[in-house]
Amino acid sequence: MARLDGRKPGQMRQVKITRNYLKYPEGSVLIEVGNTKVICTATIEEKVPPFLKGGGEGWITAEYSLLPRSTQVRNAREAARGKVTGRTQEIQRLIGRSLRSVVDLKALGERTVWLDCDVIQADGGTRTASITGAFVALVDAVNSIYTNVEKPFPVKDFLAAASVGILKDGTVVVDLCYDEDSQALVDMNVVMTGSGQFVEVQGTGEERPFSRRELDELLAGADKGIAELIDYQKEILGQLSWKVGREP
Amino acid sequence: MARLDGRKPGQMRQVKITRNYLKYPEGSVLIEVGNTKVICTATIEEKVPPFLKGGGEGWITAEYSLLPRSTQVRNAREAARGKVTGRTQEIQRLIGRSLRSVVDLKALGERTVWLDCDVIQADGGTRTASITGAFVALVDAVNSIYTNVEKPFPVKDFLAAASVGILKDGTVVVDLCYDEDSQALVDMNVVMTGSGQFVEVQGTGEERPFSRRELDELLAGADKGIAELIDYQKEILGQLSWKVGREP
Amino acid sequence: MARLDGRKPGQMRQVKITRNYLKYPEGSVLIEVGNTKVICTATIEEKVPPFLKGGGEGWITAEYSLLPRSTQVRNAREAARGKVTGRTQEIQRLIGRSLRSVVDLKALGERTVWLDCDVIQADGGTRTASITGAFVALVDAVNSIYTNVEKPFPVKDFLAAASVGILKDGTVVVDLCYDEDSQALVDMNVVMTGSGQFVEVQGTGEERPFSRRELDELLAGADKGIAELIDYQKEILGQLSWKVGREP
Amino acid sequence: MARLDGRKPGQMRQVKITRNYLKYPEGSVLIEVGNTKVICTATIEEKVPPFLKGGGEGWITAEYSLLPRSTQVRNAREAARGKVTGRTQEIQRLIGRSLRSVVDLKALGERTVWLDCDVIQADGGTRTASITGAFVALVDAVNSIYTNVEKPFPVKDFLAAASVGILKDGTVVVDLCYDEDSQALVDMNVVMTGSGQFVEVQGTGEERPFSRRELDELLAGADKGIAELIDYQKEILGQLSWKVGREP
Amino acid sequence: MARLDGRKPGQMRQVKITRNYLKYPEGSVLIEVGNTKVICTATIEEKVPPFLKGGGEGWITAEYSLLPRSTQVRNAREAARGKVTGRTQEIQRLIGRSLRSVVDLKALGERTVWLDCDVIQADGGTRTASITGAFVALVDAVNSIYTNVEKPFPVKDFLAAASVGILKDGTVVVDLCYDEDSQALVDMNVVMTGSGQFVEVQGTGEERPFSRRELDELLAGADKGIAELIDYQKEILGQLSWKVGREP
Amino acid sequence: MARLDGRKPGQMRQVKITRNYLKYPEGSVLIEVGNTKVICTATIEEKVPPFLKGGGEGWITAEYSLLPRSTQVRNAREAARGKVTGRTQEIQRLIGRSLRSVVDLKALGERTVWLDCDVIQADGGTRTASITGAFVALVDAVNSIYTNVEKPFPVKDFLAAASVGILKDGTVVVDLCYDEDSQALVDMNVVMTGSGQFVEVQGTGEERPFSRRELDELLAGADKGIAELIDYQKEILGQLSWKVGREP
Repeated sequence: MARLDGRKPGQMRQVKITRNYLKYPEGSVLIEVGNTKVICTATIEEKVPPFLKGGGEGWITAEYSLLPRSTQVRNAREAARGKVTGRTQEIQRLIGRSLRSVVDLKALGERTVWLDCDVIQADGGTRTASITGAFVALVDAVNSIYTNVEKPFPVKDFLAAASVGILKDGTVVVDLCYDEDSQALVDMNVVMTGSGQFVEVQGTGEERPFSRRELDELLAGADKGIAELIDYQKEILGQLSWKVGREP
Repeated sequence: MARLDGRKPGQMRQVKITRNYLKYPEGSVLIEVGNTKVICTATIEEKVPPFLKGGGEGWITAEYSLLPRSTQVRNAREAARGKVTGRTQEIQRLIGRSLRSVVDLKALGERTVWLDCDVIQADGGTRTASITGAFVALVDAVNSIYTNVEKPFPVKDFLAAASVGILKDGTVVVDLCYDEDSQALVDMNVVMTGSGQFVEVQGTGEERPFSRRELDELLAGADKGIAELIDYQKEILGQLSWKVGREP
Repeated sequence: MARLDGRKPGQMRQVKITRNYLKYPEGSVLIEVGNTKVICTATIEEKVPPFLKGGGEGWITAEYSLLPRSTQVRNAREAARGKVTGRTQEIQRLIGRSLRSVVDLKALGERTVWLDCDVIQADGGTRTASITGAFVALVDAVNSIYTNVEKPFPVKDFLAAASVGILKDGTVVVDLCYDEDSQALVDMNVVMTGSGQFVEVQGTGEERPFSRRELDELLAGADKGIAELIDYQKEILGQLSWKVGREP
Repeated sequence: MARLDGRKPGQMRQVKITRNYLKYPEGSVLIEVGNTKVICTATIEEKVPPFLKGGGEGWITAEYSLLPRSTQVRNAREAARGKVTGRTQEIQRLIGRSLRSVVDLKALGERTVWLDCDVIQADGGTRTASITGAFVALVDAVNSIYTNVEKPFPVKDFLAAASVGILKDGTVVVDLCYDEDSQALVDMNVVMTGSGQFVEVQGTGEERPFSRRELDELLAGADKGIAELIDYQKEILGQLSWKVGREP
Repeated sequence: MARLDGRKPGQMRQVKITRNYLKYPEGSVLIEVGNTKVICTATIEEKVPPFLKGGGEGWITAEYSLLPRSTQVRNAREAARGKVTGRTQEIQRLIGRSLRSVVDLKALGERTVWLDCDVIQADGGTRTASITGAFVALVDAVNSIYTNVEKPFPVKDFLAAASVGILKDGTVVVDLCYDEDSQALVDMNVVMTGSGQFVEVQGTGEERPFSRRELDELLAGADKGIAELIDYQKEILGQLSWKVGREP
Repeated sequence: MARLDGRKPGQMRQVKITRNYLKYPEGSVLIEVGNTKVICTATIEEKVPPFLKGGGEGWITAEYSLLPRSTQVRNAREAARGKVTGRTQEIQRLIGRSLRSVVDLKALGERTVWLDCDVIQADGGTRTASITGAFVALVDAVNSIYTNVEKPFPVKDFLAAASVGILKDGTVVVDLCYDEDSQALVDMNVVMTGSGQFVEVQGTGEERPFSRRELDELLAGADKGIAELIDYQKEILGQLSWKVGREP
């Protein structure tokens, strides 16, 4: 079965990351994955949450939001509803946890990096695009405070994410657009490092359960797609990419 | 006294409006006023609030939000705080009221137009930029449902807004950037129509009161600046600008 | 066109201010403007909000509320709804900003004055009555802590407010009662000082825009009405009125 | 031991009820019990809560609030805090339950009576003053809709409330003012009908428990004080007092 | 009239208290009163609320909750509704106040004891069962920190609670089950100490008022039932019961 | 490395499920997994959420809560905080989604099954115990409304869940207790059906990423442990277990 937009099962959408997209943040990118567009900013705050105070370690936290008309039908603002939905909280926790996994919080020092991912257009894969884009904003922000080359660079490895899924006819595909995603039988998000290891594997078979063989296919698809994304991150970061993972 | 960015007292910043900025909304623009950037979308919803049900009239309502790092220092999300600040509510009410003043709600029919103004970069004048940009998104959205040329076009007149103020040395200036705004003695926002009439005049002398003569100067500055904005709106809307105010 | 209650266009309603209306507050008045009745209290708190701590300056803040049956139809309590409406927040911000404009916050010292305006009967003009009444409560409260006559009296000038508007037949009137207000085409609130300068000008033409000539007429009406209110404030304050604006 | 204000143990404070205190509500009184002052209004709403819909019975509900400076130290508004305190909810439930006990909800018909008790000055006994005052407002409001004399008058009996308590020296006193109340060992609120029966008995011995003999003394004091209050209600209601409890 | 479950008017239901019901809390019991089942835990926290800081006294506070299906019809979680109902707050305040009445807060020292009462099955009398059970958990928790026998044991007396009421036919009964409770004309909760004194008396005649003679009967029933509960508490606490009220 | 409680890496804790644990719910169990204890109830509600109305399909939804002292340190009630945490929402969504995957929502008809999982003691694995226990409560509740044997039984397959993880020394273990869980490098929750397929795979390597080989080991451990749980569910359900997955 041909995919809705003519892609092959293992083919990712066109990705574009624009660095320094905004004027004020320490790091900011616009990431476009097909029609999905997310502004990711990284803010350095010179303090940590109370539970970390005085321990010499830093923190990474993330917030995520959809603009009301990023979607086909307008979705009400969470500020107007007075609370953050479960879906948003789940995504925020996923982004924060994923990015923390590649940061040396001791080397970061007692600082918080806030990662804000604001989706301005949503065509599937907004959480994985947020992670992939936030990584680049994070590197820029961390670099802005990295003054002592005697110390390791706080970002230890590359990190990117992709969605994979099983369509109605059983095809395993990567990087689902919204129309594919809303009809998929199985839906999985995978976050991996530059060294090809897993940080998050979140697979859901709400429509129907999936077999071990299918799981293997899904993971293989994610692995290949994420490797491509990380190559692109390196290209975009240029010389700065050499700092990632560097020991003093 | 020269202005911070070298402009003359009565000189507006460079304005740029990009129509059809997003894929899904009925109307959407990116408006850039100097470094201030706002995404304005207009959504048509085929129902009205309860207090208007069955009356045959439509409604226009607006929401406004700052992205966390649109500003120099990160400002906490209203969704995370669980409530909308007074400043935001005041701005939302101003935008909605202003736009309603140029719409024939009967001609609109029992529909709501939601105007969402999301500031991605804030360098002063975000509420006036929101009004000026939302007007263009509104015209596009209204046009998308305007099928019966026997009826008047629901948008009756052009509408734009500008800020004016008095600097520390007493100079009356138009279109203040953030650094000017935060030091101004008097601060005023003016909304006017294409026919040169006032829709909103909101002047505040928190730092020091202002005289009648100063008020006259402020209004004159706003009048001239807004006229320029409306000329630009017409240019951007092209042929569609002829529909505004057209009777059947 | 005769006004609903027989007044002339430029005629204010009967005003009455009762000082020391309550037993506990440092300042408290009942202000009656026609049928509109507001209890205004001023509370001295010996601390300032966090953003002012240690700077030696004081702060003025205001809260406003309608009793549920101050209005013709019962309006639900904001406490029961769990949030303050946009209208209330707008009014609170207006009252606070207006009163701050005539207070020397340095001379006040690191204290907050809370102005509470509770409307017990609402027949139009509650926000302007609140400002006019809160001013008197503020002077009493500030006087209660003004012990060092070597220093300037912290209240620098008189302050009062009035509403003006344009009725359906085009007449410009001052001090609108509720029935006039709900039908007015243009609605404006003006706050002025004892020296005849403007502190706030908030005009709205939601029903129809207004011309520059109309704006001038509105401002003239407000100017005259407010001057009468300030004369009455002086009378009510008696000897204490001499302290307002006094240098050491 | 003499009481703080010189009263004898069984002596109530001066009570004054002003009927028709406000212009808009169907019933409204200002009740003054010594320095305690409460505005009680009764609003008729032509619908009932969902759980009573279609059953032909009415409902009585109450809301209670302290003005911020009704008290010696300013207490924060519940609207600003975004929630109603436990103390307020307890009082609201008590007022509603008490008043319902003397109303024939069938005779009332499918209507809600809202009783709003807003304390403008609090010197102890605000909940009992609210009940005593709300009863008078209720009779006026019910009378405004009582058109069919073939049916019983919906208010079946008189109702008033008093506080009683045990002071530090063991004296049992009635109608405690704030300074007595805050030091009392035992605190009790009693609500009784015109026929001398109990509707509510709420006694608390947080500082020390109380014996059966003390309980008897407390009840006797309440009984006598409430009888005086009901005599006064009858006087204030004048002719209307004859309708209370009248069968067709 | 025979009672629904065949009990005599003055007969309590079967009571069972299981001490050390949970692994982590300093004190925890499961109390079963007929079909009513409540888990009561007591937690020692080594700090006090701000208003007590530095005064050398401790504090007792209580929280109460119904599991969603503790009741016949599922009741929505308060966490999901975002607020605690008035009924819950009233019960929490009652439990806290009651337990505080038998604790020497000075002897407790600057600590808070949190009493959590979670109802897993509700068949009437959940608030009185909570008090009776929480008392036992409290004694265990206080004992866990009572190391200095030179000081008085902080729990000064026994404490238990029972409900009493008047059924439709006028019978005064003790310890009402849910079906009795929901039809009772008069409903009363009584909290008493081991020395037979009253701590709380809360009687409500919403369906009809009650006479002085009925009140006496209700109190006599409560007195007898509570004495039985306290005997059982002593049995369950065994040797530990000797510490209650002991002076050094 | 020996495990904290002496178990072998692939060894599950002792499991005990008590059916019909409470009196009122349509289905209710107490599930004990080692020291972890969760009350799971299933409630049938004869309506569906708005988005399903009229479609003939049912819905399954879940709520999860920790009792304050289910944990070593008391955790504040979400009702008292006024909102549900992100962790709770994530767990609720996981439980609901998992159970829906084995229910034929058409065969269920327009009904909602509410699954309430209340943790009374938490020693790791509360979300997986909730799923395993809720499944049994669900079968009982569905059976209570399954009257037409001509139709398929709405529960299509068995379902259980287990946690797996990687300890500090690299050992892959199943069914982690709290002390293991809080030190694990990698943490994974797996939900599987009776036919051995995956419904949810949620693996997180916040402390360090994990390799593909480790992932395979984790999945194998989960597979074996879950099979044991499902065998136990069948034993507990007895004859009723034959209905699961039965076609008419």
